Amino acid sequence: MSFKQEMDQKGAQAKKAARRLAFLASSVKNQALSAMADSLEKNTAAILAANAQDMEAARKSGLSNALLDRLLLTEARIAGMAEGLRQTAALPDPVGEVPGMWKRPNGLEIGKIRVPLGVIGIIYEARPNVTADAIGLCLKAGNAVILRGGSEAISSNIAISRILTQAAEAAGIPQGAINLIEITDRSAVDYMMKMNRYLDVIIPRGGAGLIRTVVENSSVPVIETGSGVCHTFVDETADLAMAQSIAFNAKVSRPGVCNSMETLLVHEAVAADFLPAMLFRYHEAGVELRGCEKTRLYHPAVLPATEEDWATEYHDLILSVKVVNNIDEAMDHIDLYSTRHSEAIVTSDYFNARRFQREVDAAAVYVNASTRFTDGAEFGFGAEIGISTQKLHARGPMGLPELTSIKYIVFGDGQIRE
Amino acid sequence: MSFKQEMDQKGAQAKKAARRLAFLASSVKNQALSAMADSLEKNTAAILAANAQDMEAARKSGLSNALLDRLLLTEARIAGMAEGLRQTAALPDPVGEVPGMWKRPNGLEIGKIRVPLGVIGIIYEARPNVTADAIGLCLKAGNAVILRGGSEAISSNIAISRILTQAAEAAGIPQGAINLIEITDRSAVDYMMKMNRYLDVIIPRGGAGLIRTVVENSSVPVIETGSGVCHTFVDETADLAMAQSIAFNAKVSRPGVCNSMETLLVHEAVAADFLPAMLFRYHEAGVELRGCEKTRLYHPAVLPATEEDWATEYHDLILSVKVVNNIDEAMDHIDLYSTRHSEAIVTSDYFNARRFQREVDAAAVYVNASTRFTDGAEFGFGAEIGISTQKLHARGPMGLPELTSIKYIVFGDGQIRE
Repeated sequence: MSFKQEMDQKGAQAKKAARRLAFLASSVKNQALSAMADSLEKNTAAILAANAQDMEAARKSGLSNALLDRLLLTEARIAGMAEGLRQTAALPDPVGEVPGMWKRPNGLEIGKIRVPLGVIGIIYEARPNVTADAIGLCLKAGNAVILRGGSEAISSNIAISRILTQAAEAAGIPQGAINLIEITDRSAVDYMMKMNRYLDVIIPRGGAGLIRTVVENSSVPVIETGSGVCHTFVDETADLAMAQSIAFNAKVSRPGVCNSMETLLVHEAVAADFLPAMLFRYHEAGVELRGCEKTRLYHPAVLPATEEDWATEYHDLILSVKVVNNIDEAMDHIDLYSTRHSEAIVTSDYFNARRFQREVDAAAVYVNASTRFTDGAEFGFGAEIGISTQKLHARGPMGLPELTSIKYIVFGDGQIRE
Repeated sequence: MSFKQEMDQKGAQAKKAARRLAFLASSVKNQALSAMADSLEKNTAAILAANAQDMEAARKSGLSNALLDRLLLTEARIAGMAEGLRQTAALPDPVGEVPGMWKRPNGLEIGKIRVPLGVIGIIYEARPNVTADAIGLCLKAGNAVILRGGSEAISSNIAISRILTQAAEAAGIPQGAINLIEITDRSAVDYMMKMNRYLDVIIPRGGAGLIRTVVENSSVPVIETGSGVCHTFVDETADLAMAQSIAFNAKVSRPGVCNSMETLLVHEAVAADFLPAMLFRYHEAGVELRGCEKTRLYHPAVLPATEEDWATEYHDLILSVKVVNNIDEAMDHIDLYSTRHSEAIVTSDYFNARRFQREVDAAAVYVNASTRFTDGAEFGFGAEIGISTQKLHARGPMGLPELTSIKYIVFGDGQIRE
């Protein structure tokens, strides 16, 4: 069987399973998720053995330490995956909710009811824990799923998906609901991006390169996730102690994630009061600093920032800093370089707070808080499948409702159209 | 200037205008729409003159009568376009609505606010009235628009868009909000579908060929609209008089549109009672009938239906008819051939009504009513930019809210993440 036939077969069985999954009782889905969590834990040894194979191959091929860390599974990480599945089971089921219903003058009653998207494709990289997370969230929202993880993690992914599939089917999830593409060749991704017949959406999860490839080449609708060139603007009227606390947290608490700050913008009226202590604190914390000419006056360690710096998501303890004349220059800079993920202003001015929230175009716009809060759990959604930086369908942290669509149900008594 | 430079320039000015349009007062937008309507009517003669050029060229190039009719503008049709703009002005402004706001345990207040999509691309065919409709709806929802109409209508489209742009700008709409691509070459469409830097979404409007081309080739997110292979299933317990009325209306009232029925499915228990009179009535009305073997027993004019018939949107007075054993066979047939637009059951059975609405996967699922009601105005939305047959972002008739996105606004008092 060619790889295309294998993928078409998985597509067809996923589509068939999706038809049944769409109206499966929440209790069946929840019991399945809980059984899947138990089975993951029970099979920890087998998963670790599979992961050891991946790790050995990865070490031989010279993968970086950062990538090796993403690939590594431990007993604790497997317990974390199981816990994630149990939390997903505990979330409310979005399917079947009726967000609205109304009556037309001709007597027709029209309702809008939440339904699953159908079949969701996930294309991701080295993290094997995405396998369990994505399967859990997609199933809970009534969707079938086709996964394509990075080749480095193939043994781990096969082990995890088989264990989860077996537990799911034993608990009443239709056969074909969970599918892992086991072909590690790049051509499998190319083919997947053209599987409009079977896939309702593809969600890429990973680095900027992967996401760009999927956005540019997929004919299946895509939800773009991820990259975050986030800014914090310290306004003229900012409480400077608050500003320092927020700006430090936004950069230093977890620099490798998308909601961390990459560029600090400072109103020139407070630059002399704010920057010396702020830059000193960053420098002490090991942050490499790159700044505009004015910024460089306040600390000797600040390297000159290039045009490229303003557009870069460092994913690291590196920060670019710019002194601006006013809120307009700050918002113009943000408009030019932002990836429209998360943006913050620190201010005590009512009108500037309002202007910033209204005029800045991003998934999340903060006043007097750290951008690090853009996250499904922190927003109160319980779990997330990613953070959308596009405007279509979903924006910001995507929870279970973002994995659904709606349909109109129309109740009549014989109405015909004139 | 190359055509790519021209298009990039329009993209950049649209993006700039979108930033201002996003928070323009509703009153300014409404007054502009009303001024645009007046200006269309005042310039009727100029529009008709431009349209006459298009009509002459189209006749010379041998366009079909159906296409010539779509291309033709009359005084009444221009008045209709103006009326459409006035109705759009009267609709509630979706921008700025806050569908939800909540407080987190750490004191952060998080709100979800409706914002425009940004820059919307519309790719359409010969109908010049789409130019005015699309401009009106996009502007009202706070979006800039880049239009690319069919080459046959280029003179009409240039005239309409210039008149509307002038009136809009005089009424306070930012320069660059309305853009028409005047290059009629196909390569302009190819380039537009890759303008991710400037366009937030492309909505294709037209025939199945155009829509397929855009879905398959656009890297800009697409909302798929249109094609409708719609079914009506007459169940065993149907009120047969009601079923005849609905099935006749669904096929005959306007066969050229996407919500009309293409295939009638009849439960075999009522075939002998229902089909003779039904087929006679269709035949009298000039409907060409194509049926399964069982159907052909009930009227001599029924031609044999081929596999292709079940998958065809006729856009014409042609109907395929199939006798099925039960609701399961009906739903299997629908699942196989439906384009997931509109599907109807006629039944008196509570459980079958419920099953059909729950299990059939389509934008609109009817019980005891004609599929012809799937329409923005009939649903009570006031206007529509198209009917989405995809599940991402929007499904079914798309009104003003479907031309918007959301963003999260977060109010803090110095919160940082642990």
